[in-house]
Amino acid sequence: MLNPADDAFVQKLAEAVPDLWLGAPEPRYLEEPRGRWKGQAGVLAKPATTAQVSALMAFCHAARVGVVPYGGGTGLVGGQVCSDGPAPVLVSLEKMTALRAMDAQSLVIEAGATLQTVQDHAASAGRRFPLTLASQGSAQIGGCLATNAGGVNVLRYGNARALCLGLEVVLADGTIWHGLKRLAKDNTGYDLRDLVIGAEGSLGLITAASLRLYEPPAVEGTAVFAVTSPQAAVELLGLAQARFAGCVSAFELISGWGLGFLRDVGPEVHLPFAQDPDWSVLIDLGLPAGMEAEAAFADLYEAAGDRVTDAVVAQSAAQAAQLWQMRESIPLANRRIGAISSHDIAVPVAAIPDFIAEATALLNAMGDFRLNCFGHVGDGNLHFNVFPAEGRSRSDYDAPPVMEAVHKLVVERFDGSISAEHGIGRLKVGELARTADPAKLAMMQAVKTALDPRGILNPGVILPAPQKP
Amino acid sequence: MLNPADDAFVQKLAEAVPDLWLGAPEPRYLEEPRGRWKGQAGVLAKPATTAQVSALMAFCHAARVGVVPYGGGTGLVGGQVCSDGPAPVLVSLEKMTALRAMDAQSLVIEAGATLQTVQDHAASAGRRFPLTLASQGSAQIGGCLATNAGGVNVLRYGNARALCLGLEVVLADGTIWHGLKRLAKDNTGYDLRDLVIGAEGSLGLITAASLRLYEPPAVEGTAVFAVTSPQAAVELLGLAQARFAGCVSAFELISGWGLGFLRDVGPEVHLPFAQDPDWSVLIDLGLPAGMEAEAAFADLYEAAGDRVTDAVVAQSAAQAAQLWQMRESIPLANRRIGAISSHDIAVPVAAIPDFIAEATALLNAMGDFRLNCFGHVGDGNLHFNVFPAEGRSRSDYDAPPVMEAVHKLVVERFDGSISAEHGIGRLKVGELARTADPAKLAMMQAVKTALDPRGILNPGVILPAPQKP
Repeated sequence: MLNPADDAFVQKLAEAVPDLWLGAPEPRYLEEPRGRWKGQAGVLAKPATTAQVSALMAFCHAARVGVVPYGGGTGLVGGQVCSDGPAPVLVSLEKMTALRAMDAQSLVIEAGATLQTVQDHAASAGRRFPLTLASQGSAQIGGCLATNAGGVNVLRYGNARALCLGLEVVLADGTIWHGLKRLAKDNTGYDLRDLVIGAEGSLGLITAASLRLYEPPAVEGTAVFAVTSPQAAVELLGLAQARFAGCVSAFELISGWGLGFLRDVGPEVHLPFAQDPDWSVLIDLGLPAGMEAEAAFADLYEAAGDRVTDAVVAQSAAQAAQLWQMRESIPLANRRIGAISSHDIAVPVAAIPDFIAEATALLNAMGDFRLNCFGHVGDGNLHFNVFPAEGRSRSDYDAPPVMEAVHKLVVERFDGSISAEHGIGRLKVGELARTADPAKLAMMQAVKTALDPRGILNPGVILPAPQKP
Repeated sequence: MLNPADDAFVQKLAEAVPDLWLGAPEPRYLEEPRGRWKGQAGVLAKPATTAQVSALMAFCHAARVGVVPYGGGTGLVGGQVCSDGPAPVLVSLEKMTALRAMDAQSLVIEAGATLQTVQDHAASAGRRFPLTLASQGSAQIGGCLATNAGGVNVLRYGNARALCLGLEVVLADGTIWHGLKRLAKDNTGYDLRDLVIGAEGSLGLITAASLRLYEPPAVEGTAVFAVTSPQAAVELLGLAQARFAGCVSAFELISGWGLGFLRDVGPEVHLPFAQDPDWSVLIDLGLPAGMEAEAAFADLYEAAGDRVTDAVVAQSAAQAAQLWQMRESIPLANRRIGAISSHDIAVPVAAIPDFIAEATALLNAMGDFRLNCFGHVGDGNLHFNVFPAEGRSRSDYDAPPVMEAVHKLVVERFDGSISAEHGIGRLKVGELARTADPAKLAMMQAVKTALDPRGILNPGVILPAPQKP
């Protein structure tokens, strides 16, 4: 069992690490975007250096006090808010944003920098850091790595894990692991980098990262294709990959439900088709020099035959941005409607049509819902979100049976994932325990105990918090 | 301390797992390609099913007997041969080669299948499994994953780790982890898959894997460019990425030394230039439909200006194969000459020219050597191999000071890797302990102890074998 970060502890911590910023957290540090939990914290710490993080962790370790890392606060599974148990120390690395190094292939930056800042540094050198999220203005790179963030360019570039070459990490006892290698290949022992990435702050605190940079494609284009069905969308993806292997940067499914939500509750965005298609896909191509995006899309449209009923190819960067604004506004419309249960699921790409059909039938049999299913079809990752029927509110519904039914379908029928990109956080600890392979759970617990024997790192995330002995 | 797999143990094992193939290993199971060590084994086991592997491991765990996995036997760092300590059980999965499933995006196959077999299955479905190694006819996919194999297409597709979606693994105590997911995105807890990949059999025994398949590029081409220097090679790579981002499949540096070795000792291969250039690069492009490879190479040649002095663009698949045969024959020529010390190093790509200059100067100051430096410049991974002067033999030289000097330069001056793609095995355990970050070593030991508390899995690989208590 952990001890609380009470006044006596905070006073001793302030004496032990005299230059460390300590204070009461403003309310925003105790909130999360969907408003499901309210956090608590004994104190907020804002270290300015890795040495301060190390001293802080060593002190918490000795005192058996929990440490909850808070990045940009944009996580959707409650990884950044600790709502019960002994009050932890909340740690924000917002003062640690320095760009430590940059060359044509990589940059090294501190974990508190926002994703947007990382992208801007890359752009200033004529390079691109391709991780792209709607929340990139707030999300910090440390949090993006801790949660192995996904987004719309995973299809081409991989998730946050694939974009990270090395880490600097402060371990539970304050030890600093200096792992900021900038190497594409390094087979010197266990892959600790990928173990810490995606561990949601429960195995170590990422203080800096070296990140891959890419040449922007010579030619880029954006289009939206209206397709006749999810099956047509998957087949269109196959046709695109056959023509443009390695050059399909994004391939996003949008449902007519989602466009209807945008019309109903906003935000106001330009919708490309006069009549909303039941299904459409938003496609980014990044092509070699010598090609033309419009011709490439025309070729794809031709090849698609009757799978496609209409298409709009962006004629300018502004038009492309407009199409992306439509896509990126869907989560906000969802939030305004208010989901009963949101499901960030993955299945094999080829199984997407069956999953949508079966999940829709399942929900229709359970009650009167509206659905919005959209997302990263190229990765097999859909956001299958369930909303109250028109005129009803989510308090009229019982959420857990909805989540359990969808997850059961995902896991048992499709061997899929109940969290493709958002992580487990505190929201899905029970769902993970209920659905995961027992050997996997045992291995995870063994690794957690080995690297954080006192269980002070983000207690209650991924695995249950330590209980009274 | 472990117990030996002696006659009494083998007899009890045969009784406990009655259908398991057990026998004395033929000599080839106790050898490795460079002939540095001779292995030993109490018995060779060839399980036919995952259940047999599980029963075998549980029995060895109970008896504290070491288990050494033997794949295709092509590893270069002694991971497959245990030359001292108590005699282990040698395990070959050569009977486990079944293709369990395949669709357009992935296949699931047992670990004993060769890499060539995996490639052939993919090709039969019009897909490609892009891991490519000179030894792919012998190397097994289980070994490729256990060692996180690299090869010539890492630049475009990543190493073995990036090509694996899921694993089935038998743990030290015989527990089976059923992790054969076929998902591009799955953030349900710690990344155990990447922890087992690259662990060289020391954390679990991979029995099957789900692997990513790719659409072959619509247009492919191969060329060799003679460049004026390593700096010109790195700049040429930048020019290629600016034009063909995502479509440069391979970019291999070849030195005049290597071509000279081929002329001196064979094997006989066609060399593209009448006079061997000091430096050349072999380039594969995989382009979208509508492009022409020859025009793309001509554009690149034009852009390269005086960085390039000559080029040969393959006019047929046969000519492309000829150019690749030259590249793939260099390791055999090296073996015929007989290296004093081979260095599979990585540095940041931009640092390659400085590394080559400084390593060459270092060796020239140490004695009379021949050098052959070649490899995957696009990944920052060079094979910097040191040979005796003409007319002398490697027994005239003291190898360890050469290795230590090169590794010191790599680590201290370039923050590089002493094993970019071959792994640590038993060859580099001491070098890793000497050069790695202490926190990394401690984390690795903690993970090893957590997942294999008795130390029976490939003892002595990566970390030192368990000693007498």
